Amino acid sequence: MKRALVVQSDFGISDGAVSAMHGVANSVDHDLKIFDLTHDIPPYNIWEASYRLWQTVTYWTEGTVFVSVVDPGVGSTRRSVAVQTGSGQYVITPDNGSLTHIARTEGIRAVREIDESVNRLPKSGESYTFHGRDIYAYTGARLASGIISFEGVGPELPVSSLVQLPVKEAWAEDNMVEGMIDILDIRFGNLWTNISRELFKSLDVPYGGAIEVEIKHDGRSIYRNVMTFGRSFADTHKGEPLVYINSLDNMAVAINQGSFARAYGIRTGSNWIVIFRKKED
Amino acid sequence: MKRALVVQSDFGISDGAVSAMHGVANSVDHDLKIFDLTHDIPPYNIWEASYRLWQTVTYWTEGTVFVSVVDPGVGSTRRSVAVQTGSGQYVITPDNGSLTHIARTEGIRAVREIDESVNRLPKSGESYTFHGRDIYAYTGARLASGIISFEGVGPELPVSSLVQLPVKEAWAEDNMVEGMIDILDIRFGNLWTNISRELFKSLDVPYGGAIEVEIKHDGRSIYRNVMTFGRSFADTHKGEPLVYINSLDNMAVAINQGSFARAYGIRTGSNWIVIFRKKED
Amino acid sequence: MKRALVVQSDFGISDGAVSAMHGVANSVDHDLKIFDLTHDIPPYNIWEASYRLWQTVTYWTEGTVFVSVVDPGVGSTRRSVAVQTGSGQYVITPDNGSLTHIARTEGIRAVREIDESVNRLPKSGESYTFHGRDIYAYTGARLASGIISFEGVGPELPVSSLVQLPVKEAWAEDNMVEGMIDILDIRFGNLWTNISRELFKSLDVPYGGAIEVEIKHDGRSIYRNVMTFGRSFADTHKGEPLVYINSLDNMAVAINQGSFARAYGIRTGSNWIVIFRKKED
Repeated sequence: MKRALVVQSDFGISDGAVSAMHGVANSVDHDLKIFDLTHDIPPYNIWEASYRLWQTVTYWTEGTVFVSVVDPGVGSTRRSVAVQTGSGQYVITPDNGSLTHIARTEGIRAVREIDESVNRLPKSGESYTFHGRDIYAYTGARLASGIISFEGVGPELPVSSLVQLPVKEAWAEDNMVEGMIDILDIRFGNLWTNISRELFKSLDVPYGGAIEVEIKHDGRSIYRNVMTFGRSFADTHKGEPLVYINSLDNMAVAINQGSFARAYGIRTGSNWIVIFRKKED
Repeated sequence: MKRALVVQSDFGISDGAVSAMHGVANSVDHDLKIFDLTHDIPPYNIWEASYRLWQTVTYWTEGTVFVSVVDPGVGSTRRSVAVQTGSGQYVITPDNGSLTHIARTEGIRAVREIDESVNRLPKSGESYTFHGRDIYAYTGARLASGIISFEGVGPELPVSSLVQLPVKEAWAEDNMVEGMIDILDIRFGNLWTNISRELFKSLDVPYGGAIEVEIKHDGRSIYRNVMTFGRSFADTHKGEPLVYINSLDNMAVAINQGSFARAYGIRTGSNWIVIFRKKED
Repeated sequence: MKRALVVQSDFGISDGAVSAMHGVANSVDHDLKIFDLTHDIPPYNIWEASYRLWQTVTYWTEGTVFVSVVDPGVGSTRRSVAVQTGSGQYVITPDNGSLTHIARTEGIRAVREIDESVNRLPKSGESYTFHGRDIYAYTGARLASGIISFEGVGPELPVSSLVQLPVKEAWAEDNMVEGMIDILDIRFGNLWTNISRELFKSLDVPYGGAIEVEIKHDGRSIYRNVMTFGRSFADTHKGEPLVYINSLDNMAVAINQGSFARAYGIRTGSNWIVIFRKKED
């Protein structure tokens, strides 16, 4: 059965790179459904590539093939792999950490290294730089259309051999939970943390209740304030900060109709810490 | 018969939100044709969402399903609706005014409130914030693919109950017509007014003739000058202003190969007035 | 047999123009596969439209129909044409130079002028400004879906009558090659020249060898330095400049993980010259 091909990269959509990938995939199989996840991953930002794959992969059916090309090590000895996720989708990517989030959540069932001697766009041997088009899009389209099976990608690799980015775990103790700012909800400037709804529940704060939020960067306190834990933005006034549960069931911090990230100069990564403390009555 | 699904939002295309919506729609029906109208609606700008729907809807065949998610009131008591337009397409949207333009031009034949007890992505109950994916994209895909009929969306509502944004009508008197700046042609900085070609005709200015253009903001005159009424940009020199008929058969003001909006700091809405006056000989 | 329709323009994707084109094409044939090349061509930049068509066209199968709408002369007497490329794809475009690159590389087999009396969206006669939707997307969709043949586009024109933009050829002499900066790899700020790998080979510089790079603007030297000729970015350190072969088999200049274009204020066109000189030992 044919499945969709979903393409992600840091190429942007202002030049012809993405269309060349689409063209190669369409040439493999004219009936293939081709979608774009995003091509706006910040250049070389493997962490964000990993995050965006995780954010979307389970909303696609089993068998969907993702191609993710954020590849600062292109031309090095980094491997090219295809994996089957625990939820049954496939991801084709350089093995550089872009499967970090999925490996920790959905899990990885199996890994294959792309055999470029068979899985390479014919007559592309002279071009050294566009693996995204000649290897990844080509192989992804062949897998999605059923021309090759997962086994046909190439030899099996141990799941444990996949490159993983370092992650700082969220944790809780009496009356506080701590985590990192995983990513920004770019369009609205909201902070998305790696603190799950479940972990946050240990604070026992009801919807509409008050919660203290502190944000630290490299150990220095950047922000500390009490705000509402809202069921939605409608629970606060315009311009008011709030804590809410995002569409990934993780805790997020926002200003209603404003940009929290811009207001306080917040960015992402394991050196940006968020602490929720239960407010004493 | 299957119809296309066309998705609009203010989410941008830099994260995974749009792809999650695509994934849900593709999961409903692998054969569904999915398109994007735009995801670049300015955050929370319902007026522009309404305008973009109007600008495109009639170029799609009857039965096409639009999903528009510009939803500042998400989580409030605002209703979620599906409507059938006077030209036969469907639009699924929060009931917050994003049907204002279509209601005034194509008209609305019928309205249904989405019954979220049946029209909600299975297992999405825990997530409170992503109606665009779990309700709107899911329901839109089911309607477009024929899994549910329009009646299957939910109970009927009176057309008159739809929320409408306030609009300032264009009008004419001897030798002048007045209207508002409806929207900017963003890429080129042209001003698109709500003054129709028909109304403008009352001035009896021929192609190539001169017309005085005044622009007022909150009653204060921002710009007043005489320019050419051109059949097209080719009728003026580079850098020259002109009045022309846009692709919606409304009057527009531009600088040939320049940005009128940026040159004079023009924006949109009912407090931005345009007056065309016939130049006396 | 049905082929894909690939659309390019300078309209951006923030308004409804592209979606109206998609809608018209989808209305012509619900089964048509519709793709976007890019809509981010700088406004009125025919050179870049020509470059992007060339960059992608051969990655799509024979019979694919491209529609390119960068049309500063809309409304003038410029012709609307469809061509068949030497590699078997079709391009529909205003005849203003946007076929310059393809004509020089793939060649043009045949040209037809669009007969707008038959190839125009029904009931679009009143609108003077949106040829992209009413003529080009409509005709492109009819050609891609097989409703009309190439001959059905309109009367044949001599290939030699196509408008061509001026081009500065790359050339070589002892120990140097000279060319122009054809385009920027926008996302990464790399300079893409029109100097082919073949021409560069005349310098006999091995991978890993040193090469002097000079960049001149209007005859004045802007940059002159020795850098590595790398097989890929992995051959240099972060922040180091390099010369490499791009995905078009042309020579390019970059800073590893930086923007060369921004660092030195480089732009494109025939007045931006690149000279590679073999370094004497």
